[in-house]
Amino acid sequence: MDAGFFYLQKFRTMKKIAIQGTIGSYHDIAAHKYFEGEEIELICCANFEDVFTSIRKDSQVIGMLAIENTIAGSLLHNNELLRQSGTQIIGEYKLRISHSFVCLPDEDWKDLNEVNSHPIALMQCREFLNQHPQLKVVEGEDTALSAEIIKKENLKGHAAICSKTAAERYGMKVLQEGIETNKHNFTRFLVVADPWQVDELRQHHTNAINKASMVFTLPHMEGSLSQVLSILSFYNINLTKIQSLPIIGREWEYQFYVDVAFNDYLRYKQSITAITPLTKELKLLGEYAEGKSNI
Amino acid sequence: MDAGFFYLQKFRTMKKIAIQGTIGSYHDIAAHKYFEGEEIELICCANFEDVFTSIRKDSQVIGMLAIENTIAGSLLHNNELLRQSGTQIIGEYKLRISHSFVCLPDEDWKDLNEVNSHPIALMQCREFLNQHPQLKVVEGEDTALSAEIIKKENLKGHAAICSKTAAERYGMKVLQEGIETNKHNFTRFLVVADPWQVDELRQHHTNAINKASMVFTLPHMEGSLSQVLSILSFYNINLTKIQSLPIIGREWEYQFYVDVAFNDYLRYKQSITAITPLTKELKLLGEYAEGKSNI
Repeated sequence: MDAGFFYLQKFRTMKKIAIQGTIGSYHDIAAHKYFEGEEIELICCANFEDVFTSIRKDSQVIGMLAIENTIAGSLLHNNELLRQSGTQIIGEYKLRISHSFVCLPDEDWKDLNEVNSHPIALMQCREFLNQHPQLKVVEGEDTALSAEIIKKENLKGHAAICSKTAAERYGMKVLQEGIETNKHNFTRFLVVADPWQVDELRQHHTNAINKASMVFTLPHMEGSLSQVLSILSFYNINLTKIQSLPIIGREWEYQFYVDVAFNDYLRYKQSITAITPLTKELKLLGEYAEGKSNI
Repeated sequence: MDAGFFYLQKFRTMKKIAIQGTIGSYHDIAAHKYFEGEEIELICCANFEDVFTSIRKDSQVIGMLAIENTIAGSLLHNNELLRQSGTQIIGEYKLRISHSFVCLPDEDWKDLNEVNSHPIALMQCREFLNQHPQLKVVEGEDTALSAEIIKKENLKGHAAICSKTAAERYGMKVLQEGIETNKHNFTRFLVVADPWQVDELRQHHTNAINKASMVFTLPHMEGSLSQVLSILSFYNINLTKIQSLPIIGREWEYQFYVDVAFNDYLRYKQSITAITPLTKELKLLGEYAEGKSNI
């Protein structure tokens, strides 16, 4: 954990982290990995909108949200929520996602006729599900919650797809581990906070900042993106992610989500000043230290 | 329809179009819109892998596959299947996706306890589903197939989310139209074919070609992407889409999916020659005419 967080800790006994999902969910795992060694209090939200609402209601709440997955791709909706929320990214974490197929402790394969999980987890286990066509595939709000409900309500015949951590937490039997189709299954999570809180953090760890995320609009002109990227390159700023999104209703304009990495914070700041006149609606989504991962 | 297709038609009585999904699915609608005025025979496949298998088995088969959606984002898996398949894009179509909530003709809202559809359709109707928590959300292979099964098996209490076209086709009652959360819900479909077939088409409609899709790898170097985009800009080539994907296991290299638009085919060809030495593994996924849409 970087210095800023230790500074913050002096003033607060326990950080409040809003996540989508419940105890044992991948957001929970990522939050505990990111804030390793610190005591955190989870605020479990039913959806990503509620994560941002929690921060709006209490500026001390920190949010943790998935932003992209190597299999499922970018969570465009979360990009949009982040852009609109006015919160700032203060960190990131990359988590290897491995799913388990779990059931009630006194049941086995032959007893099962239904599987419950979050739609993205189901998507990531498509091959496994195709091999078990007898299972009715039922969407739930969350991976861990699916396991919890089966256990609490003693739902015979139901299996869940969730993390091994969730299975252990809710006393479920793991029938098969690593059921995700593609083993290169990683999710990148962003840690977001109220701008007021970010400013406080930033005074103390500017040195550690080597990454930034931004979104801007460009006219659909030959070379408008090339100009922006050339300037970033002149300032020795590296691109680590770029994604264009058409702006519906504005046919000739595009929105670009760009992540950059750099060694020199001042040079980075200068590059932003240099590209601003060539872009429209440039919005910095956050400046942070490149993420740790459990990879 | 462009001239190439009419040429082709002289030699074949009916085009065989492989789609993911069944009659009444959005792929079916897109295929009929794209090949308007032509007789087509659908080959309905359970998944996208089977679409490519159909083309491999019979080089005269044309594939139609969703590649990106304004809400759900890029279908990364289809990008990858396309890249690996060796097929070429010969066209595109942009379809406005509007979902309906449908049930058996003799049932009504009060009778329903379960809703069936394709996971992406369910995702696009999340707000509607949240408003109806009494409905168990069950994933199916396809939107239209969900409606078909409910009708065929007379599944009381079941609703489906599908197109109005599918509801009409299978004699289902439409309880609510336009239940997608975001009305700016568009899917871009690609038309793909065996390279042998593409060559035949290409002789006759090079004039109409004003778009191309490609994928290449770049070292994670300051400015490597900026150099490539600068060259494209010098040749008056427009970017219409760019998306970077990290290559798992090759930490410092990135894969880029890029779509370009141009007026001058020769200039475009020259630009590809010019960028090739600066990229690795450049692969042209297809050259085609910009897509019509029903927007």
